[in-house]
Amino acid sequence: MKIPSKLIEDTVTEFSRLPGIGKKTALRLALYLLKQDTEVAENFGNTIIKMRQDVCFCESCHNISDNEQCEICLSPSRNHELVCVVQGIRDVIAIENTHQYNGVYHVLGGVISPIDGIGPEKLNIESLLFKVKQGQIKEIIMALNPTMEGDTTIFYLSKMMQNFDVKITSIARGVAFGGELEYVDELTLARSIASRMPYENYLLNQ
Amino acid sequence: MKIPSKLIEDTVTEFSRLPGIGKKTALRLALYLLKQDTEVAENFGNTIIKMRQDVCFCESCHNISDNEQCEICLSPSRNHELVCVVQGIRDVIAIENTHQYNGVYHVLGGVISPIDGIGPEKLNIESLLFKVKQGQIKEIIMALNPTMEGDTTIFYLSKMMQNFDVKITSIARGVAFGGELEYVDELTLARSIASRMPYENYLLNQ
Repeated sequence: MKIPSKLIEDTVTEFSRLPGIGKKTALRLALYLLKQDTEVAENFGNTIIKMRQDVCFCESCHNISDNEQCEICLSPSRNHELVCVVQGIRDVIAIENTHQYNGVYHVLGGVISPIDGIGPEKLNIESLLFKVKQGQIKEIIMALNPTMEGDTTIFYLSKMMQNFDVKITSIARGVAFGGELEYVDELTLARSIASRMPYENYLLNQ
Repeated sequence: MKIPSKLIEDTVTEFSRLPGIGKKTALRLALYLLKQDTEVAENFGNTIIKMRQDVCFCESCHNISDNEQCEICLSPSRNHELVCVVQGIRDVIAIENTHQYNGVYHVLGGVISPIDGIGPEKLNIESLLFKVKQGQIKEIIMALNPTMEGDTTIFYLSKMMQNFDVKITSIARGVAFGGELEYVDELTLARSIASRMPYENYLLNQ
């Protein structure tokens, strides 16, 4: 695709570096910004630059934050003895949106995946173990993606913590609400039978 | 969606202003840029700001350009007596990509659409008429979208130019190459029969 302006072409190149954005969409976005007032494009560009320069990560839970510690870690109304271990920042946002969880988080920054060259040393595991060793934590909820890598990471973490006085749980896995059994994949269905729960727990979920 | 950082939230707001980008995609893009080096985000932001500030429109054909006149209008190898009238910049790029057209362009910046409050005075029609009056142009090819508004605009332009010595043509409308007749819509099929072309022209198109 030949674009008659080098400036537009550069913008298209920049946009199409973003995930899920091809050349045609990038051109549409560039021409959209070209149509707006100069301030709109300036705000857009400067907001992104400022975000990248100024955003920091919470030194306690590694969540994104505008300060040294995130709002969740600083909040006195949160239960700091309950820690939810997640893979990434988007998982924190997803769980926060349920408005059902009152503990704090620990963002690993990924999962153990030898095929991608990600070993335990590349994840935020040391700082989690440090908190566990200090005896601040009573329960750790593993909320990792239900994949091979997620399960490997849970196994690794539980091994590392087995000598400490901390309860390790995992978010429940089973059939999703509102689905139909006949369309559930076999692995999920088989496991949901194997790990069936008492009827009282079922009622709790209603 | 509650995001734990105001800076990220601002970025998400800016991204979701763009057409076709919702909150979830915007968050994905923001977190992608957050993962990259600071220079990547700076380049991204600055390229967009520079594009909006410095890009100009060709004073002859209203195409985007890095200078006062675009490369196409300045090119001596182009046929300046043949002008292709298009709605927008993307149409210029689309036609240029065919590598089949050797004339110049005139970008209207839209089509006449009373329902959207766009009258002829909002389009780049004056400068086209000026060129026609000067007698520089031998043929004008109307390459507007095959819609009611496109047809209205072609009708208006041809009325304005009827007293001048200029040939007005339109790009051919009919069934697209590679399609199947049974799936072509009725209007297109009916018109393609009404405006059937001599077999010699058909051969030309092969």
